[in-house]
Amino acid sequence: MITDILKIKHPIIQAPMALSDSPALAAAVSNQGGLGSFGAGTLSPQQIRDKIKEIRALTNNPFAINLFSPIDTKKYTENEIQQAVKSLNYFRQKLGLKDVDHVELQSPSSFDERLAVILEEKVPVFSFTFGILSKEVIQKIKSHNISVIGTATTVREAQLLETNGVDMVVAQGYEAGGHRGTDLKVTNLADALIGTMALVPQVVDAIKIPVIASGGIMDGRGIVAALALGAAGIQMGTAFLCCPESNIHQIHRKSLLESTDESTRLTTVFTGRMARSLKNAFLLEMEKNHFPILDMPIQGMLVKDIREAAQKQNNLDYMSLWAGQASRLCREIPAAQLFNQFISEAQEILSNHSLKNFSLAQ
Amino acid sequence: MITDILKIKHPIIQAPMALSDSPALAAAVSNQGGLGSFGAGTLSPQQIRDKIKEIRALTNNPFAINLFSPIDTKKYTENEIQQAVKSLNYFRQKLGLKDVDHVELQSPSSFDERLAVILEEKVPVFSFTFGILSKEVIQKIKSHNISVIGTATTVREAQLLETNGVDMVVAQGYEAGGHRGTDLKVTNLADALIGTMALVPQVVDAIKIPVIASGGIMDGRGIVAALALGAAGIQMGTAFLCCPESNIHQIHRKSLLESTDESTRLTTVFTGRMARSLKNAFLLEMEKNHFPILDMPIQGMLVKDIREAAQKQNNLDYMSLWAGQASRLCREIPAAQLFNQFISEAQEILSNHSLKNFSLAQ
Repeated sequence: MITDILKIKHPIIQAPMALSDSPALAAAVSNQGGLGSFGAGTLSPQQIRDKIKEIRALTNNPFAINLFSPIDTKKYTENEIQQAVKSLNYFRQKLGLKDVDHVELQSPSSFDERLAVILEEKVPVFSFTFGILSKEVIQKIKSHNISVIGTATTVREAQLLETNGVDMVVAQGYEAGGHRGTDLKVTNLADALIGTMALVPQVVDAIKIPVIASGGIMDGRGIVAALALGAAGIQMGTAFLCCPESNIHQIHRKSLLESTDESTRLTTVFTGRMARSLKNAFLLEMEKNHFPILDMPIQGMLVKDIREAAQKQNNLDYMSLWAGQASRLCREIPAAQLFNQFISEAQEILSNHSLKNFSLAQ
Repeated sequence: MITDILKIKHPIIQAPMALSDSPALAAAVSNQGGLGSFGAGTLSPQQIRDKIKEIRALTNNPFAINLFSPIDTKKYTENEIQQAVKSLNYFRQKLGLKDVDHVELQSPSSFDERLAVILEEKVPVFSFTFGILSKEVIQKIKSHNISVIGTATTVREAQLLETNGVDMVVAQGYEAGGHRGTDLKVTNLADALIGTMALVPQVVDAIKIPVIASGGIMDGRGIVAALALGAAGIQMGTAFLCCPESNIHQIHRKSLLESTDESTRLTTVFTGRMARSLKNAFLLEMEKNHFPILDMPIQGMLVKDIREAAQKQNNLDYMSLWAGQASRLCREIPAAQLFNQFISEAQEILSNHSLKNFSLAQ
């Protein structure tokens, strides 16, 4: 039972969503008996330490901190980078920004520096995405009495995570909002776009440790569906994005509530790594104009000023709008209330007539 | 209850799979209390009449006949067509076939000619894909006391089908094998790739008539999951492909059993219409070489000799290998036995501990 391993009451995890989640969101979910998460993959060690303190000030219950695994970063020539920078002036002009012909690339904190904080702070649960950590690293984390959750988008990734010693695996379906957790050293991206309904049972069959279903799960219906597929737990991200505790821009929240099943697209334009966002002008025009898109983390650095200016100007067209394929099912209510609705919806379905009728037919 | 409308015992439909299904498969499923289907979209009126007779000789229970809706076919110049024909000589050479520089395009039977047989034969259930039939046509079919099932890949398609009077809607998720049922006059294909977990609840919320979930459903787990999402019934295609009653080549059957979650790809190379197949040389080389791909039905006519030769030569590389994203969960057992396994698996899950535990927690 993942509730025993994680010391939580309900097998429901609020997905880490770097820059879109918050200590308040994580704590609200943990306080209701789920597992709140905070995505710290873009923060400095000191920022991570501060956020952990913030969460601990709001809850005594277990929570998770998520990091991006170290990933191979492609080397670009100065010329390739400046060409990409200049093509983006197309958008800067639309936002009234000055043209830019050079971006100073930062050197972000290393995975090891960030992980050191997680270990020192002895956070209850550590989760990671993008790459499969080695046996040694996973063992080291577990030796600090920290539970470890890996992310898989294919059966092979799940098997490697199990081999390397994680406690449980999130199986991330194609429907999921935000970044694909694929380890590109293991799986070709085009092969790692498997719908939740197809992915979860195959992962469940392939590994012995608990599987947490994610991707397109927005309410009690999705929770029960995931359990039926054999998942031991559920991870929900987009479902929590419209809560007031999330860190997204109010116009992003509004656009989620007004979205439809046709609104999202997988794209690399915002960060250099495949992620699901609501379609907007930046996404569509980057692709239409065939502007160069560099790999993570470079692309994110190049478009940072554009995304920030769009946020300041309340301009939906040029910010990232992470969203899963069922974003229209978002609810704009406090996370604690939402979490309790999930539980009661799931219980209602488990006792309802259509399921019972099926069970009695024969 | 769709079981009442369709006069069947279990709300499980064997998906129509033109050229891969068979009267024996449909009858086996119908005899067990499900709804067997036969895809007649490529047959002549006389062939359809013969197949209906074959099914009726094998079962007294309701069954469905499926047709492709009339679709707009793009006009190509003689030059465009011959260029496509010639590029395909690349594959003909690999199969030891003679080069071809001209293909005589057939004029297939019209939708109306095919539909006339359905009406005359008063088949119990009629289903259709690719296009949303008009109110008038749907009303005409229903006036013959025939139940009508439409296929939707987006909420808007489902709403239009309801407005036009179908009795129920199949919501086809992204995971599904074979052709996407999208109406390209209504939805942009790129917007119509919605995973089953995300699509089904959104369709259920949007229409009042029963929704049948399809895409990635392979066993009792998927059946219960679909019911939890709010579906009134389940349609399964790939799940039946390895039954001895299906009409696929034995090496296609074997490759399904040996497939993984990473094996399939959406492609237009075989028919000119987006469909999910196991990856093989034809699929990958057509795309890599950027050979022209014409729209349905032209593309299918141009590659017909190649696919037929591949079948004769037991050559997996150049035939279509329709498969959903969970094809590895196929079972090579008779359809009646498989169907009964689905029912008992679903019932087992509905009474099992993990679901009950969730229901008791709080």
